[in-house]
Amino acid sequence: MNTSPILSTIAVLGGTGKEGKGLAFRWAKAGYRIFIGSRNPEKAKATALEILGLLDGKAFIEGTTNIKAAQAAGIVVLTVPYPAHRETLECVREPLQGKLLVDVTVPLVPPKVTRVQMPPSGSAAQEAYAILGKNVQVTSAFQNISFEQLLHAEPVECDVLVTGTSQEARMETLKLVLAAGLTGWDAGPIENSVVVEGLTSVLININRQSGSKNAGIKITGIPKRIANTTVE
Amino acid sequence: MNTSPILSTIAVLGGTGKEGKGLAFRWAKAGYRIFIGSRNPEKAKATALEILGLLDGKAFIEGTTNIKAAQAAGIVVLTVPYPAHRETLECVREPLQGKLLVDVTVPLVPPKVTRVQMPPSGSAAQEAYAILGKNVQVTSAFQNISFEQLLHAEPVECDVLVTGTSQEARMETLKLVLAAGLTGWDAGPIENSVVVEGLTSVLININRQSGSKNAGIKITGIPKRIANTTVE
Repeated sequence: MNTSPILSTIAVLGGTGKEGKGLAFRWAKAGYRIFIGSRNPEKAKATALEILGLLDGKAFIEGTTNIKAAQAAGIVVLTVPYPAHRETLECVREPLQGKLLVDVTVPLVPPKVTRVQMPPSGSAAQEAYAILGKNVQVTSAFQNISFEQLLHAEPVECDVLVTGTSQEARMETLKLVLAAGLTGWDAGPIENSVVVEGLTSVLININRQSGSKNAGIKITGIPKRIANTTVE
Repeated sequence: MNTSPILSTIAVLGGTGKEGKGLAFRWAKAGYRIFIGSRNPEKAKATALEILGLLDGKAFIEGTTNIKAAQAAGIVVLTVPYPAHRETLECVREPLQGKLLVDVTVPLVPPKVTRVQMPPSGSAAQEAYAILGKNVQVTSAFQNISFEQLLHAEPVECDVLVTGTSQEARMETLKLVLAAGLTGWDAGPIENSVVVEGLTSVLININRQSGSKNAGIKITGIPKRIANTTVE
């Protein structure tokens, strides 16, 4: 874990949803300082207290607005539903300058959530990069996880594919994957996020075929020691 | 295996390349009648003889032109490099009417083969469907396999995601996956092919990180008995 105070603080925007709550729980447990952000700060405070309870009070976790959370942290993780994606990003554009955004958003278009339907930018992560500008590093990750498993500290049988605007940003994100107890892989440039976001629709389709909720993917054929790293 | 004579005959266009050769070997071994197609029929005949040799002469496999192969078979599998994709499809448009095309093509754009770069139609498979018209069913499959492993009858640690223009076409393709000794999953409509084609760039990126050649994916969290099937 990076011990620089600013990098070891994570804001989880939209952190009252199940994705954000599960990730915040894992990172708080790993020793990161967490700010849960929400349009409704009272709800964010309640979520922070709930996670603190799960960790017997042994964590730093606070609930506040999305803007204040983004101001407080060096890494900002976006876990809002897709319809709130653009508005939330525009709202935190200023405090995000010079920082890292980890976009967890999947641009599902109900009712056909088993069909890949990307926005004109090519993917939600590329849309985020277009909104935030070149002074913000953007990665995308964690879209394929069954988030219920995160909160219960179960081993998660799903790898995390990380794409991003720079190798440095992917490396930083791979550290967060490891801190959450997951296996991550450098999946290349941000243009590849379409694969990882779209894979969620494929997994939903496989879940529906099987009556399951836990379809995931594992990378095979590679020594495990290569995971959670990136090299030129 | 389907025992109808027309459905149990497979044409492998561009079948002299390593992808086509590996698949033709597996299907010939499983009892399908195989026509290897190539722009160069002499090369196709040599490949047919090579595969026949690997199977001690116990198979039906012939080499011919792409057009004659497409005329002879009920299922046509396309394994040409992407630059030959459109030309080959236009060449076999007529004999393909009323049949099933299984597109194995990955639209890699050298030198940046680790970056997902799809054609304007959204994916190679959607491009094929646009060229062939609505009387041809199109599926996409087998893009993520290390084809060297197919020829050596090794167990392949990579699942096959099948997308396609109808459930019936995906079901027929899942039978071919099973016949090749592989595990397949119904990955949804043809619009999802961008995920499966693009995953190849992600796997190439992971291979480069690790100095490996065999990165693949496995679907997790689902009972194995659900594989190679599709349900409404």
